[in-house]
Amino acid sequence: MSETEMQALLKDTPSNWGKWGKQDEAGAVNYLDNQQVLRAVLSVRKGLSFTLGIDVCAESGDPVAPGRHRPQRYMLRDKGHYEAGKVKRVKCCGGGESSEDLMSLPLHGTTHFDALGHVWYGDKLYNGFDANTTKGGLQHCGIAAIAEHGVVGRAVLADLPRFKNLSHLPAGYHISFSELRDCLDKQGTQLEKHDILLIRTGWLNVFFDGRVDEFFGDDEEKPERSFNLIEPGLTYEEDLVQWFYDMEIPALCTDTLGNEQTFSSTTGLHFPLHRALIRDQGMLFGEILNLEKLAEDCADDHHYDCMFVAAPLKITGGTGSPANPIAIK
Amino acid sequence: MSETEMQALLKDTPSNWGKWGKQDEAGAVNYLDNQQVLRAVLSVRKGLSFTLGIDVCAESGDPVAPGRHRPQRYMLRDKGHYEAGKVKRVKCCGGGESSEDLMSLPLHGTTHFDALGHVWYGDKLYNGFDANTTKGGLQHCGIAAIAEHGVVGRAVLADLPRFKNLSHLPAGYHISFSELRDCLDKQGTQLEKHDILLIRTGWLNVFFDGRVDEFFGDDEEKPERSFNLIEPGLTYEEDLVQWFYDMEIPALCTDTLGNEQTFSSTTGLHFPLHRALIRDQGMLFGEILNLEKLAEDCADDHHYDCMFVAAPLKITGGTGSPANPIAIK
Amino acid sequence: MSETEMQALLKDTPSNWGKWGKQDEAGAVNYLDNQQVLRAVLSVRKGLSFTLGIDVCAESGDPVAPGRHRPQRYMLRDKGHYEAGKVKRVKCCGGGESSEDLMSLPLHGTTHFDALGHVWYGDKLYNGFDANTTKGGLQHCGIAAIAEHGVVGRAVLADLPRFKNLSHLPAGYHISFSELRDCLDKQGTQLEKHDILLIRTGWLNVFFDGRVDEFFGDDEEKPERSFNLIEPGLTYEEDLVQWFYDMEIPALCTDTLGNEQTFSSTTGLHFPLHRALIRDQGMLFGEILNLEKLAEDCADDHHYDCMFVAAPLKITGGTGSPANPIAIK
Amino acid sequence: MSETEMQALLKDTPSNWGKWGKQDEAGAVNYLDNQQVLRAVLSVRKGLSFTLGIDVCAESGDPVAPGRHRPQRYMLRDKGHYEAGKVKRVKCCGGGESSEDLMSLPLHGTTHFDALGHVWYGDKLYNGFDANTTKGGLQHCGIAAIAEHGVVGRAVLADLPRFKNLSHLPAGYHISFSELRDCLDKQGTQLEKHDILLIRTGWLNVFFDGRVDEFFGDDEEKPERSFNLIEPGLTYEEDLVQWFYDMEIPALCTDTLGNEQTFSSTTGLHFPLHRALIRDQGMLFGEILNLEKLAEDCADDHHYDCMFVAAPLKITGGTGSPANPIAIK
Repeated sequence: MSETEMQALLKDTPSNWGKWGKQDEAGAVNYLDNQQVLRAVLSVRKGLSFTLGIDVCAESGDPVAPGRHRPQRYMLRDKGHYEAGKVKRVKCCGGGESSEDLMSLPLHGTTHFDALGHVWYGDKLYNGFDANTTKGGLQHCGIAAIAEHGVVGRAVLADLPRFKNLSHLPAGYHISFSELRDCLDKQGTQLEKHDILLIRTGWLNVFFDGRVDEFFGDDEEKPERSFNLIEPGLTYEEDLVQWFYDMEIPALCTDTLGNEQTFSSTTGLHFPLHRALIRDQGMLFGEILNLEKLAEDCADDHHYDCMFVAAPLKITGGTGSPANPIAIK
Repeated sequence: MSETEMQALLKDTPSNWGKWGKQDEAGAVNYLDNQQVLRAVLSVRKGLSFTLGIDVCAESGDPVAPGRHRPQRYMLRDKGHYEAGKVKRVKCCGGGESSEDLMSLPLHGTTHFDALGHVWYGDKLYNGFDANTTKGGLQHCGIAAIAEHGVVGRAVLADLPRFKNLSHLPAGYHISFSELRDCLDKQGTQLEKHDILLIRTGWLNVFFDGRVDEFFGDDEEKPERSFNLIEPGLTYEEDLVQWFYDMEIPALCTDTLGNEQTFSSTTGLHFPLHRALIRDQGMLFGEILNLEKLAEDCADDHHYDCMFVAAPLKITGGTGSPANPIAIK
Repeated sequence: MSETEMQALLKDTPSNWGKWGKQDEAGAVNYLDNQQVLRAVLSVRKGLSFTLGIDVCAESGDPVAPGRHRPQRYMLRDKGHYEAGKVKRVKCCGGGESSEDLMSLPLHGTTHFDALGHVWYGDKLYNGFDANTTKGGLQHCGIAAIAEHGVVGRAVLADLPRFKNLSHLPAGYHISFSELRDCLDKQGTQLEKHDILLIRTGWLNVFFDGRVDEFFGDDEEKPERSFNLIEPGLTYEEDLVQWFYDMEIPALCTDTLGNEQTFSSTTGLHFPLHRALIRDQGMLFGEILNLEKLAEDCADDHHYDCMFVAAPLKITGGTGSPANPIAIK
Repeated sequence: MSETEMQALLKDTPSNWGKWGKQDEAGAVNYLDNQQVLRAVLSVRKGLSFTLGIDVCAESGDPVAPGRHRPQRYMLRDKGHYEAGKVKRVKCCGGGESSEDLMSLPLHGTTHFDALGHVWYGDKLYNGFDANTTKGGLQHCGIAAIAEHGVVGRAVLADLPRFKNLSHLPAGYHISFSELRDCLDKQGTQLEKHDILLIRTGWLNVFFDGRVDEFFGDDEEKPERSFNLIEPGLTYEEDLVQWFYDMEIPALCTDTLGNEQTFSSTTGLHFPLHRALIRDQGMLFGEILNLEKLAEDCADDHHYDCMFVAAPLKITGGTGSPANPIAIK
C-alpha cells in the first residue's frame, strides 16, 4: 500500500501509543485519575448541574443527515395493549400495569462519545491495533474500555460565538488555534493540564431552528464532500495538535456532529483531527452536546470551568455510545 | 371498573402528587437541588470513581429473560467494508477510514432507569396523568423529564449479602425494612434525608456465574408468575413506604432486574413497590446496576456513601433509558 | 362521536361484511377459489414469468418519504467476521463458512399488500371488527388471514400511460372510471368477474429516474396534505365503487405507493378508496409493484391478462406484508 | 491456506460454475425457463393452492434457536395513537384512520430461501466469486438475483414420515439416497428432470407441539455442535450429489431449519450438502416450509406433484429472504 495523504500528514504527529501499556484501549481518559477527580470537585461552587445531551426522537427531529440511520423508538406495551387484551393478566398483578419500549439507536446518532477504534488510517487503530480487528465489531478500542473507566474531570468551556458576538459560527468556519486561545484569554479562563475542553460553536441551533437545508449544506455543489456536513470547528494545525499533546487533554467535546471543521481548510482533507487526536493521541471525542444553558451560566458568573461527569454505555465492540454528560458548577 | 387489589392496597399510601406542581413529570429527583449536589460533593474523599453499568452485548450475555427483547449490536461499517469496496472513497478522505454501528436496545434491557410512567394502576400515572396518554409513547412522565434534570446526589449503599455473610441473597428472599435498617446500622452508615439508596443483593452474580436457569427460576412450577423472575429484594411494608416518603428519598437503585422481591411475600402481588414508590411518590428506580466493586471499596474503607451521578438519555416518550451511573468516593 | 366526512361519504356504499361469515378476516380474496385458480392457469400461454417486486435497499434508494422508516439491512456475519476471529470455529465445520443478515423492514415500505385492518373509519374495521382490536397489533384482519389463503387468480393490466402516450401519468392525475374502461377497451382487454386489476401509471419511474423532489411533491405549499405524496390514480366515484362490488374484484394492484389519487379530486379527502374498497368490500390492495416489464410484454403480444400469484408473509397481527408477486403469461 | 476438510471432500464434486455465464448469480433456477413453467402448469388439476410459509411472530413462537435473532414486530400506529392524540389529524382525512408496523426480521429466521452466497468454502462462492465480496453485504450471489428470476416450476413431494409410518423422522435421522428413491417409488411419484424437490420430515411438528427442548437438542452433551440443531435429513453421499447434478434439480425445500442432517453421519461435518449443492451446483435451498396440508392432500389423491410458485424479496446484498411459497395442485 502506498502512503496515503493522511499518513503523509501525520507522519511525525505526537502519539500516546504505549503510554498506558500495550494493551490499553482507553487512551487519554487514563489521565483522569483520582487527582483529576478531586480537582474536578473543586470546580463545583453553586451545586448547579447541566445535562448536555440533546433530545432523542423529539418532534423537532434528530440532527442526522437524510438517508443515514436515525434513532427510532418502538412501543412494546402501553395502555392500549391492556384495553385490547394483548397483555396476559395474572391474578397477582392485582391491576398493576406497565409500559415498555425499544429503540433502534445508531451509536453516533445523538449526543455520544467515539470509541478509539471509530477512526483510523494506515490500517492501524490507536495503540497499534490492527484495523482488521474492527470487522464485525471492535475487538480492540471499543467504547467499553472508556465506559468502564468513566469520564470524570475538570472541564473548561470556550464559547466562540459569544466571544465573536455571533449567534453561531458560520458554515465551514475555521476556528484557528490562536483564536481558541484568544477566546479563552478574553473569557479569563485558565485551561490547565488534564482539563477536558468543551467548545461551543452554536452551530446546532441552525438545525434546531428548523434551517435543516442550511445545516446539511448543498451536497450537489461540492461533490467531493463525502459527508454532507459543512460544520465550523478546529482543524489540523501542527501547533494545535502539539498543544493537545503537551496539555494532556483527555477529551474534546463540542456542539457539532463532527467536532472539527468538516472540510479542513488547512489540509484539504476530511476529519484529519479525528486521526491526529483519537487515533494517535487516544483522545476522547464527545459530539453533539447541547452547551447552550451551560454557556449562558458561564457568561453570567464568568466561571467557565465545571466538574464534568459522563459515562458512555459499556457496549462490547461498540464504535461509540450515546450519553447525556453532566456539567456541575 | 371495580377496585383492583393494587388500589385497595395503596388506598392510603403517601403520595407526592402535586408537590412539584401539576405539570411535574420528574418526581422525586426534584429533591436533588443545588444543596443536594453540594452535599454529594462532600462525600468525595479519594477521587475514586466506579462505573455501575453492566456490560451490554458481552459474550457472557445480557440478563434478559428468554423470549424478551435483548440488546443487539449491528455493524454498519468496518475494515471489511473498505476491503470489499462498499464505502465510496473520495479524494479528500486521504486514506482515513472509520467504523460505525447501530443497536436494537430495549429501554429496560440493561442497566437503566424507569420513567415515572413505566408503571401505574387505577388508570392514573404519577401526578394524576391519564394512563391513556401512554399509548404510542409516554406523552407524560417519560424519561426525558428526569434526563433533563439529571441525577446528582449523595448515595449510600446497603450491602445486604456482606452483612449476612453470603455471596448473594437467596432466590425470592424478602429484605425486610428492619433488616435494611440493621444492615445500615451495622455498617455504621447514616442515611440522611434526600439520600439515594443503593441496595446490593449479589443476585446478578448468579447470572454472570453462568447459572442462568437458577437466575430465571422455574417458570412452569409457579404458573401464576407472569414474569419469570424470582429475585430477592424489598417489598411492600407500610412503614417502609412511609419511611421512603418521610426521608424524601429521590431514588432507589439495586443490582437486580426488578428492584424488589418479584413475588411479594407480604401482599401476594407482583411489584407493589413499583406502584407505591414510582407511581405514588414519583421515586426514580435504577435497575441492574453492578455494585460489586463499589461494595468492595466500601467494605475496605468503611465509608458507604458516595457522590452519585447518572443521566438517562433524553428520549422523548421513553418508558426508561439505559445509563451507566457513576459513584465517586 | 359525530359523523365524520368519511362516514357521510360512504353511508350507502356497497359492503361485503358478512358475505364470508362473521369471523372472516380475509375478505375478497375468498373469491379466489379453485375455479379462479383454474381460470388463471388458462392465461398462461408462453411460460413467461415477471417478478413484480421492486428492489429493496438498492443504492437507488427505496421510495419511502423522507422521515418515514425505510428498509435497512444489517450484516450479522460475513467473511470479515471469520478473518477477525469473530466466529467460533469448531472442527466439524471443516472450513465451511457462511453469511447472515437481518432487516429492519417497515411492512408498507416496499412492494407489499395491505391487511384489511390497515385502514378504517367509524371505529370499525372490515367485517365490523372493533378498531380497538388494532392496539398493539391487529387481533383481527391482520395480513396472516390473506397470507394463509394466498393470492392466485387471473389478472388484467390497464396500462394508462401507454394508452395516453405518456411516460407516466402527471402528478395528482385523476384516472376516471370512464378512462379506465376506455383504456381496457382500447387494449382489447376483457376484464371478467373475479379478475385481479393491475393499473400501471408509470409514476414510480419518477422516483427511480432520480426526480425524488418531484415524486414526493412540495409539502410546504399544500400544508393540508398530511402525507407528502401527490400520486395519480383512481379515486372515489360512486359507479366505480359499485363496479368493483359487482365485478367481485378480489384485488387492486398499482405501481404507486398509495394505489389511488392521493388527494381525491372528487371528494376533497385523503384515500377514500382505501375505505370504500378495503374496509367496506374487503378488497386486497397491492402497492408499489414494478409493472414495467410486464407492460412491455403485454404491449408486444396484445395479451393483457396473466396468471397472478402472490403471497404475503403470515405475520401475526401484521398491518401488511412485503411480497414479490409473480405474473405468468 | 492448507486444504480444509470441506475442500478435500468436495474436490471432485460436480459443479455448475460457468454454465450460465461467468457473471451468473442465480444458479440452478436458470433451469426454470418457459418450458418448465408450462410443464408446471400441467400439474394443476384441481385449482387447489397451499401456502407453505409458517406463521411469523405467532404466540406459539418462531422456530429460532435461543439466543439467535428472532422476528419481532413493532407497532407504529394503531387506534391507541389516535385516542392519545399521537397522530396529527388534518381536515382532509375526514375521520379515516390507519395502522402501521415494522419488523426486525432475520433473513433466515422464518420460511426462507438461501442466497447462493449464504455458504462457501475455500474462499470462493458459487461461480467463483471471491468470499471477500460478502463483507458488509453480498456484492455477488445475493438473493436479489434469484428474486428477480422467480421460482416457478413443477415440484414433487417426498413424504418420508408417511412412507415410514411415523409422525416425524427421529432427531438426527439420516435419509439415505436409496431411502429417498424408495419413498418416491412407493408413492408412485415420477421425479423428472428440472423438478423442484420437496422433502417432508415432520420435524417442525416437534417445535410446534411445544417440545422445544427436544427440538433444539442438548447443546451441552455434544459441545462439538456449533449450531444447536439435531435435525433429520439428507446428507452428503457422492451418488446423491451426482443425481442432483444429473437431474438438474433447481431447488430443494424441506420442513426443517437446515435442509439436511445437521451433523452429517457420512462425513462428520456440518452442512456439507449446503456446500456441494448451493456453492458448487448453485441450487436453491428453501427452508422451514410447512408441508403438512400439502402432504395430506397428496396422500389423499395420490398426486405428489404440483405447480410451485415462490418469490423471495429483491433485497440488495441479502443472504436470503423470507417467502411464503405456494403449491398449486
